[in-house]
Amino acid sequence: MNFSEFMTITAKTVDAALDRYLPPETADPKVIHASMRYSVFAGGKRIRPALTLAAAKAVGGDQARALPAACAIELIHTYSLIHDDLPAMDNDDMRRGKPTNHKVFGEDIAILAGDALFTHALHLLVQVGRDTGISPSVLLTVVEEVTKACGSSGLIGGQMMDLMAEGKSLVEEDLVRIHSAKTGALFRVAVRAGAMLGGGSDEDLAVLTAYAENFGLAFQITDDILDVTGDQAVIGKLVGSDARNRKTTYATLFGIPEARRKAEQACSEALTALDRLGKEADFLRHAVQFVALREY
Amino acid sequence: MNFSEFMTITAKTVDAALDRYLPPETADPKVIHASMRYSVFAGGKRIRPALTLAAAKAVGGDQARALPAACAIELIHTYSLIHDDLPAMDNDDMRRGKPTNHKVFGEDIAILAGDALFTHALHLLVQVGRDTGISPSVLLTVVEEVTKACGSSGLIGGQMMDLMAEGKSLVEEDLVRIHSAKTGALFRVAVRAGAMLGGGSDEDLAVLTAYAENFGLAFQITDDILDVTGDQAVIGKLVGSDARNRKTTYATLFGIPEARRKAEQACSEALTALDRLGKEADFLRHAVQFVALREY
Repeated sequence: MNFSEFMTITAKTVDAALDRYLPPETADPKVIHASMRYSVFAGGKRIRPALTLAAAKAVGGDQARALPAACAIELIHTYSLIHDDLPAMDNDDMRRGKPTNHKVFGEDIAILAGDALFTHALHLLVQVGRDTGISPSVLLTVVEEVTKACGSSGLIGGQMMDLMAEGKSLVEEDLVRIHSAKTGALFRVAVRAGAMLGGGSDEDLAVLTAYAENFGLAFQITDDILDVTGDQAVIGKLVGSDARNRKTTYATLFGIPEARRKAEQACSEALTALDRLGKEADFLRHAVQFVALREY
Repeated sequence: MNFSEFMTITAKTVDAALDRYLPPETADPKVIHASMRYSVFAGGKRIRPALTLAAAKAVGGDQARALPAACAIELIHTYSLIHDDLPAMDNDDMRRGKPTNHKVFGEDIAILAGDALFTHALHLLVQVGRDTGISPSVLLTVVEEVTKACGSSGLIGGQMMDLMAEGKSLVEEDLVRIHSAKTGALFRVAVRAGAMLGGGSDEDLAVLTAYAENFGLAFQITDDILDVTGDQAVIGKLVGSDARNRKTTYATLFGIPEARRKAEQACSEALTALDRLGKEADFLRHAVQFVALREY
């Protein structure tokens, strides 16, 4: 199975699980569930949950035990997109080729749908996780790490720094700090959660953490490059938005060739980190190629 | 110690713990922490955490073990107020005699501060809870119940139904459904978490759940009455807002005398529920008098 086949199968598994785990649209209050589902099933590539499942496999674990955490992380990713897109934040009208949540449901429902997705993510992580037979102690560690990654030193802190940085000129150190919080923290916990739920050793966890941090960095740099060079029809949102918002990115700070070099360097370090893992880590290796070569 | 002394001591204990548990304002990004702390220390009465601590005591448990959960529930309450006050939601400028979070920090930061308070609530519940020596299994049950209470069948669902109900005429059944989700669910889990962390039996849990549901109902009806009869200077927000927003409440649906009768009935059922508990439950009994007689 090559990586693209793995991604297709994983996305199907994750989508089916998300459909089972989310409240149905027929449950009251219907509109909040419709709004949650609208953004969850709006064409996400499911990269984060794929990393969670691949990390569980890489340490020789059972992917099924990591599935609730994988889905929780995808719901958290969706919640952060809904809130970031709000008029009071980045004010984006389109996401993945579709109108953003608040354009369809209104700001009030979009705020609540984001809140509800985050809440539901943690609920299913615990509830389904227990049913899956994961030890309470491991599950608590995962909840602790996930909530840490989402807090004011992670996801939320990164968005906060990003809002404050608009129109300011940044140096590389600032960029690293913003991105390691805003994008990096969730990639990191996606991989670590998979490794923990798969029963990985402390040494496994250390190398996979190094992998995840470099993967996240490469992903972010590629994202910045695509905002300049990308094809709008493929990406599904306006390109050039960073320049219009006067945002400093890896592309604007270093220029495209040097940004590419930095992305390649991070990819190479991500691969090196996996050296002591065997064939079971191949999907994590392929994921690096995928992120380096992606066009959307 | 009478109830008012208990509330004073409890509020001090909870405030000191919240100050320890929240990131300091000196930590980056400073403004998000300033915003979180602004609303947390804006004069909340700490009724929910007091119930958590009192429930732990009522079942003969150690209140210190319930303190992280008590604080988590207060942070969740604060998060829900910040988001409910937003312009896209209830659009309130004042809360507890002070400008609402978004009036001081802007909508973007207010949304993120709410998100961060909820995130931090769950993080501290798990992290400090473990350090306090609570069994992982009990802690997971508390996280599961707290996230359930905050989701689309609890807090968020109640706010959603409340938004949809504005300007519509409701019957008592609708009111009960909205309030048991919007206000009741958090009171319920505040009491249940205290009872579970205090080591209560299933029977304890059952009677305390009945207590909490009736307490929450009495609290809500009193809140509706105070919106008509209250003194703005004492309550710290505009009175009459329900009438202006064309909201159906217990006061508008039944009139003040009948609403009072219903509140008294709920108080009486809350007290009856405690019959089989001893003197340790006295603070829960006094809390009922407090809610029935409160003027703010």
